[in-house]
Amino acid sequence: MKLSAIASILECKVNFKDININGMNALKDAKADEVSFVANSKYVKDIQTTKAGAVIVPDSLVEYVPEACIALVVENSYWSMAILSKYFAPPVEDEKLLDALIGDGSKISSKAEIAKGAKIGNNCTILAHVYVGCEAVVGDNTIIYPNVTVYRDCHIGSDCIIHSNTAIGADGFGFATNAQGEHKKIYQNGNVIIEDDVEIGSNVSVDRAVFGSTLIKKGVRIDNLVQIGHNCEIGEYSVFVAQSGSAGSTKLGRNVVVGGQSAFAGHLEIAPFSTFAARSGITKNITKSGLTFSGFPLMEHKLWLKLQVKIARLLK
Amino acid sequence: MKLSAIASILECKVNFKDININGMNALKDAKADEVSFVANSKYVKDIQTTKAGAVIVPDSLVEYVPEACIALVVENSYWSMAILSKYFAPPVEDEKLLDALIGDGSKISSKAEIAKGAKIGNNCTILAHVYVGCEAVVGDNTIIYPNVTVYRDCHIGSDCIIHSNTAIGADGFGFATNAQGEHKKIYQNGNVIIEDDVEIGSNVSVDRAVFGSTLIKKGVRIDNLVQIGHNCEIGEYSVFVAQSGSAGSTKLGRNVVVGGQSAFAGHLEIAPFSTFAARSGITKNITKSGLTFSGFPLMEHKLWLKLQVKIARLLK
Amino acid sequence: MKLSAIASILECKVNFKDININGMNALKDAKADEVSFVANSKYVKDIQTTKAGAVIVPDSLVEYVPEACIALVVENSYWSMAILSKYFAPPVEDEKLLDALIGDGSKISSKAEIAKGAKIGNNCTILAHVYVGCEAVVGDNTIIYPNVTVYRDCHIGSDCIIHSNTAIGADGFGFATNAQGEHKKIYQNGNVIIEDDVEIGSNVSVDRAVFGSTLIKKGVRIDNLVQIGHNCEIGEYSVFVAQSGSAGSTKLGRNVVVGGQSAFAGHLEIAPFSTFAARSGITKNITKSGLTFSGFPLMEHKLWLKLQVKIARLLK
Repeated sequence: MKLSAIASILECKVNFKDININGMNALKDAKADEVSFVANSKYVKDIQTTKAGAVIVPDSLVEYVPEACIALVVENSYWSMAILSKYFAPPVEDEKLLDALIGDGSKISSKAEIAKGAKIGNNCTILAHVYVGCEAVVGDNTIIYPNVTVYRDCHIGSDCIIHSNTAIGADGFGFATNAQGEHKKIYQNGNVIIEDDVEIGSNVSVDRAVFGSTLIKKGVRIDNLVQIGHNCEIGEYSVFVAQSGSAGSTKLGRNVVVGGQSAFAGHLEIAPFSTFAARSGITKNITKSGLTFSGFPLMEHKLWLKLQVKIARLLK
Repeated sequence: MKLSAIASILECKVNFKDININGMNALKDAKADEVSFVANSKYVKDIQTTKAGAVIVPDSLVEYVPEACIALVVENSYWSMAILSKYFAPPVEDEKLLDALIGDGSKISSKAEIAKGAKIGNNCTILAHVYVGCEAVVGDNTIIYPNVTVYRDCHIGSDCIIHSNTAIGADGFGFATNAQGEHKKIYQNGNVIIEDDVEIGSNVSVDRAVFGSTLIKKGVRIDNLVQIGHNCEIGEYSVFVAQSGSAGSTKLGRNVVVGGQSAFAGHLEIAPFSTFAARSGITKNITKSGLTFSGFPLMEHKLWLKLQVKIARLLK
Repeated sequence: MKLSAIASILECKVNFKDININGMNALKDAKADEVSFVANSKYVKDIQTTKAGAVIVPDSLVEYVPEACIALVVENSYWSMAILSKYFAPPVEDEKLLDALIGDGSKISSKAEIAKGAKIGNNCTILAHVYVGCEAVVGDNTIIYPNVTVYRDCHIGSDCIIHSNTAIGADGFGFATNAQGEHKKIYQNGNVIIEDDVEIGSNVSVDRAVFGSTLIKKGVRIDNLVQIGHNCEIGEYSVFVAQSGSAGSTKLGRNVVVGGQSAFAGHLEIAPFSTFAARSGITKNITKSGLTFSGFPLMEHKLWLKLQVKIARLLK
């Protein structure tokens, strides 16, 4: 897509040498043929160092855009980004892709649907009413139970088990809101990558990334009814107990244990080997590894136990 | 159905001019050809002003039934209503209905099931393993991802997106319980109406109404694993973050924001532009708009922050 | 399977008269042709009285193994049990079984999948995209809505209703973890038994037992998005409101009412006619029946109300 076409969609007037734009990406990850955006002065550093070919930017932040990057100045850059995201969304299904490839020894139910361009490895079992979307990839020896949906472009590793009625790669919860309170969808053009030896329970939602990937690393165990927001990164061998969840862009180290009904706010970093008791509410980074936490607001578990004693005393 | 037949089902003896009853409805909404019920003295005003042709009523409330309305006096009116509800339930599927109508440009997977009497608008995309029930209606340009179930009689607007493994229109959680602790199902004979430009995440449950409609208004955004109880009304552009929910019959104004894992009790009214922080528990009406709340029990967010400081002080 | 083969898989050297082992089971339930395991000194009594033919045991507990039971001494008995569990797992599907049996008057959608060896009773309605696994059993008059998955070997009674996108019998959340933090799946070779007159909402997860059965007794009502862990036992006419759940092996008496978003820890016993207000967190046994509880930590509801008054006072 020509940058001039993008400028026209966003109704912003700019003078520039026209270039080809092949995607949208975050400031930090965007390349010279990609467009990025910034909506918040918190990200000034990321603007200054971006390698993006162009950036959608409000007037107040235009001064930070580096010389090599073309500024598309708009009133509401988040809203403009949402408008533009639709143009980079791949089709839901694409009949022009090649037929799916199925590895040796894999059993695919005749009542499953493997969309065009998908690749299934060897010795997989894919049961009835499973959907594997366009260009999705499944490794070897993986079992996908009935009624699982794997959205297009998502990757599932080898030796994985995905239980029934789980959705891998549905759109992250992203939209811009204008002054009238109306919402505009931000198309989620990233994907989900699930590494090897991961087991995911039933009725789980793992959302695809807006850009890049939501990442579930090797050996992770996810129980039923868990929510993993877009762009999360779940470290090796981490464990989510039932009905827990994480908002978007939170990154967990390895072997983090998340108790039942616990939840993370978005954009956090959690040290490896952290443990969260049931119903913890985590809203801040955890920098020291190996500790156990409880409560909402969160505190160290031993402090939480002490607090319960104090609260019980209030009743006397 | 003849009122005399109903009286016979409920084993109540009455003297009346027989009439035709074409449905069951709430006291406030029932018409002259409908039967209603009352189980609780809280609704005396609604009895006195009902336009229902007949009402199932305990002996203690019969005095409030208006002259034009025939009283069906029973011992346990809620239980009797449950018994009767089954007789007004439409069949789960109905082969006698006309074939589904599919609009121009709509792509329906051969592995989807569009039941008899359903209508799909133009330019829709309906993927594999979707079920659209009898007489359900879908507007134009709507995308329904794999493994979504739309129960019979439900309406989905135009420009909507429904993500995988979501259930629209399953029965509300309704039953009567007798003195022995046994339950009797109250058939949920209403439906769900989803207006235009609504996006619903994966693994969401939106229950159908017992009478009338569960209503999701224009522009609403619902994240994953959310519960919307029967007869709720969700105002325009309201937002439910993941794993939040509402019990039945709660009505939200426009642009209400519901944080992750928050929940509403039933039968509440919530002012527009209210915001609820993550894990709020809302058990009372909110009458003033534009405020932000937290906690369970709920309080204004700034008060909740103050409380956390006080509680932290307890630990010193 | 020969015990000598098991000893070889677990790499433990033992001198014994070889026997046939036909299954794995809990210490309390294992028979002379079954192998059990013990990982924890809490279960010394259960070792001493086990009827198991053999037991996987760490060196520290071998002294409690009765004479009639062969001890398989290993370093990490839980990990060894996990390794062995895979050998007793039935195939996901089994083409050698007989065709499914369908009772009189049952309507099975051509887009449903009833696997080999399954039995469906009379007058059932099984809608599109339902999966009923190998050797699963469904009683009479039961309705299974679209996109429900019933895993192999599970039993559903008569007069039941299972709503859309619910998973019955997915694997319980079981794994062993070694010193390196890696996990090993414990195959869940038990099943789920749902008795008669049970209604289960949409997007519910009822996990199969590791050994034996997860049991949902007669007349139970389960709302949407509920989690029932492996080996739970839910008493007659108990009620789970939306988004509540239970960890594994918890046993509820009859007519227990579980409020929305409440949850039980595992291995509890809950007295009949207990009521838990919304968002209760239950971590201890309830021995006296008929009481109402709230909060987390849990307390009697009237105490919880008093506590809220005290907490409100802190703010003044």
